[in-house]
Amino acid sequence: MNAEIISVGTELLLGDIVNTNAQYLSKQLALYGVSVYSQCVVGDNEERIVRAYEAAFDKGADLIITTGGLGPTKDDITKEVAAKYFGRNMTIDENSLKRIEGFFNSQNLKMTEDNKKQAYFAEGAKILENKHGTAPGCILEDNGKIIISLPGPPREMMPMFESGVIPFLKERQSSILKSKVLRLSGIGEGLAADKIADLLDYENPTVAPYAKTNEVHFRITANAQNEQEANKLIAPVVAEIYNRVGEFIYGEDEISLSDSIAKQLVKKNITIAAAESCTAGLLTSTLANYPGISAVLKEGFITYSNESKMSRLNVKEETLNNFGAVSHECAAEMAEGVAVAAGANIGISITGIAGPDGGTEQKPVGRVYIGFCCNGNVFTKEFNIIGDRERVRGRAVTYCFNELTRIIKDMPVQK
Amino acid sequence: MNAEIISVGTELLLGDIVNTNAQYLSKQLALYGVSVYSQCVVGDNEERIVRAYEAAFDKGADLIITTGGLGPTKDDITKEVAAKYFGRNMTIDENSLKRIEGFFNSQNLKMTEDNKKQAYFAEGAKILENKHGTAPGCILEDNGKIIISLPGPPREMMPMFESGVIPFLKERQSSILKSKVLRLSGIGEGLAADKIADLLDYENPTVAPYAKTNEVHFRITANAQNEQEANKLIAPVVAEIYNRVGEFIYGEDEISLSDSIAKQLVKKNITIAAAESCTAGLLTSTLANYPGISAVLKEGFITYSNESKMSRLNVKEETLNNFGAVSHECAAEMAEGVAVAAGANIGISITGIAGPDGGTEQKPVGRVYIGFCCNGNVFTKEFNIIGDRERVRGRAVTYCFNELTRIIKDMPVQK
Repeated sequence: MNAEIISVGTELLLGDIVNTNAQYLSKQLALYGVSVYSQCVVGDNEERIVRAYEAAFDKGADLIITTGGLGPTKDDITKEVAAKYFGRNMTIDENSLKRIEGFFNSQNLKMTEDNKKQAYFAEGAKILENKHGTAPGCILEDNGKIIISLPGPPREMMPMFESGVIPFLKERQSSILKSKVLRLSGIGEGLAADKIADLLDYENPTVAPYAKTNEVHFRITANAQNEQEANKLIAPVVAEIYNRVGEFIYGEDEISLSDSIAKQLVKKNITIAAAESCTAGLLTSTLANYPGISAVLKEGFITYSNESKMSRLNVKEETLNNFGAVSHECAAEMAEGVAVAAGANIGISITGIAGPDGGTEQKPVGRVYIGFCCNGNVFTKEFNIIGDRERVRGRAVTYCFNELTRIIKDMPVQK
Repeated sequence: MNAEIISVGTELLLGDIVNTNAQYLSKQLALYGVSVYSQCVVGDNEERIVRAYEAAFDKGADLIITTGGLGPTKDDITKEVAAKYFGRNMTIDENSLKRIEGFFNSQNLKMTEDNKKQAYFAEGAKILENKHGTAPGCILEDNGKIIISLPGPPREMMPMFESGVIPFLKERQSSILKSKVLRLSGIGEGLAADKIADLLDYENPTVAPYAKTNEVHFRITANAQNEQEANKLIAPVVAEIYNRVGEFIYGEDEISLSDSIAKQLVKKNITIAAAESCTAGLLTSTLANYPGISAVLKEGFITYSNESKMSRLNVKEETLNNFGAVSHECAAEMAEGVAVAAGANIGISITGIAGPDGGTEQKPVGRVYIGFCCNGNVFTKEFNIIGDRERVRGRAVTYCFNELTRIIKDMPVQK
């Protein structure tokens, strides 16, 4: 099957946003054995959208996937133009209307007449429910030509693609591509790829390294008739990669570094609490995205000021006077203090200079100390992080997570 | 002048990389008054590239800008196809050849025969020097049709655009486009657009609404001879929009909702502290991304457990027993407790059921209470948020920010 991705939106043409939807869809379609020969972006303009549909089918596409233009305003016409292109009338879908009404009620927002437009679809369309917004999508087929209309916001589009479009594609494709992703932290892309250099030449399954923010992913992809065959091809390669770089692998497939840590904490009943200065809750709030974390996370402290470091964490005034709040010594006392205050197995501290101001020659912007107190044992680490405020804060949390991964691996189940 | 951007590269079609070049070029072209009606992505394939050139000029483009396909391998054909399209021969440019040789020498790399290909250009082309790599670009004109070929790597493409393409555009453009963005929170896109429906028909400046996550943006764009003229066109429309929906406008242009709040807090010397349960530090860490926030933010509490709500915030045991931790009553006591504990002008609380578990019929997943204690006055609000755990937590913070925006507007400078 050949596909073309058509992204609709003036924002893209003005350069206000990056077209991450096209990347996501291209990657997904490749996995399901669908070739993408072309992507294009057009504005919310009937003539240009029709022209794009025509051109795509002329170039040999069987499938067009559009993103954007499903909103409530009269500018939003992607779905309507697709209906017209295939000569279909638009009719209201009562189920969709009810869901849209429910959405507005739940948000205490007022629904306007315009919003009803989102419940209209071409006759014969298969409707794709939107669990994250008011714009449902749809699949429209006509004589072997398919137009799938998806919403523009990625967090609405991606779940809809997964729940509605993937099953549709699976029905129509004879061979499948299946991937497993191994996720590594604490090692650079160059070194990681070096260690599995010979595997990168494999043809089925293929092995590809991807550098992510603070992480490296290896994607192992098999082409097979069915999932079972694909798994058979993938398993020995995965085992070999664990053999070589297993110590850096923190998880597989979709799990994030923080979720993988949270999962282990809960599994081993290791209680945890953090005292955060420059990150101001970023570490704890990231960990807390894992459902069930409340079993091991009781509380946390955001201690921005020196006073709060003393009153909440028992950091000594001399320590602050002699070494400053951004120091090994302060990080150590913060980690111990938070472990004691919260009665947790592991106490974590982060204190640093996030910038852009506040740096000195001795302690420049980007200097961060992290501390750990694990069942009474305290240690600290110093980092010098390059980048803006957001990056310094983000990296500081990642370094803590890398450290935590190793600490937890060796810890037994706690009572 | 109308332009089309054609990005050439299989990596884009496989979704291995995001097309940031198209965004950059669109944004730049808009600044110089060049309209971009379409962007497209094709592979390194002669027939498809020719078809893309044809389609762009057919649709009314005067200018095509391509990125990618200027490399040394035989796959790289963008420049060659442009020459062929205009019926020109390729000839070697000695200056470019020298620069390429110099580049290889300076990197202690060996130059191959293939690399010479990069010094060949269509007869009559204006050559664009590449200061960051070996692939020069070029501008080719033929009967009022222009093809500009730029390299694919952004750090080569962007400086080449700035030094070579902008001067070329300036010579040919008599007008500029200028935009102002008004950012609204606490109102849906439909209702917001309703309130300025008549303005959406304006032609110069144009007014366009954009739905963002939890926000709505209005972009006002003027086409004028210079910046001053553009500002004159924009000002009265901006004033009129403030007139109609000013209460929802939190900022202009690039500032985020949290930064706009943090800026006001610092400006008015309003101290703040939050007690976060389900959001576990997300609100405080978001506010803390604003440099200088330490002047008004001293500390924060992450109180996940009932025990910590009692010990840190003085929430009464009866309150928890009678109403539960997720209740108006608990939110009120948390807000008051954190204001007192931190000695802050504003105390904020968030307590809710982020899910996926923990919901009941009376209090389903997504039920969130937020509380405010402003110089002693306490109030709370209830929300029912639809979506996954991440969305419930994110929205809860946004609702707090919406409320805060209004609270701060009316507060005088604090001593």
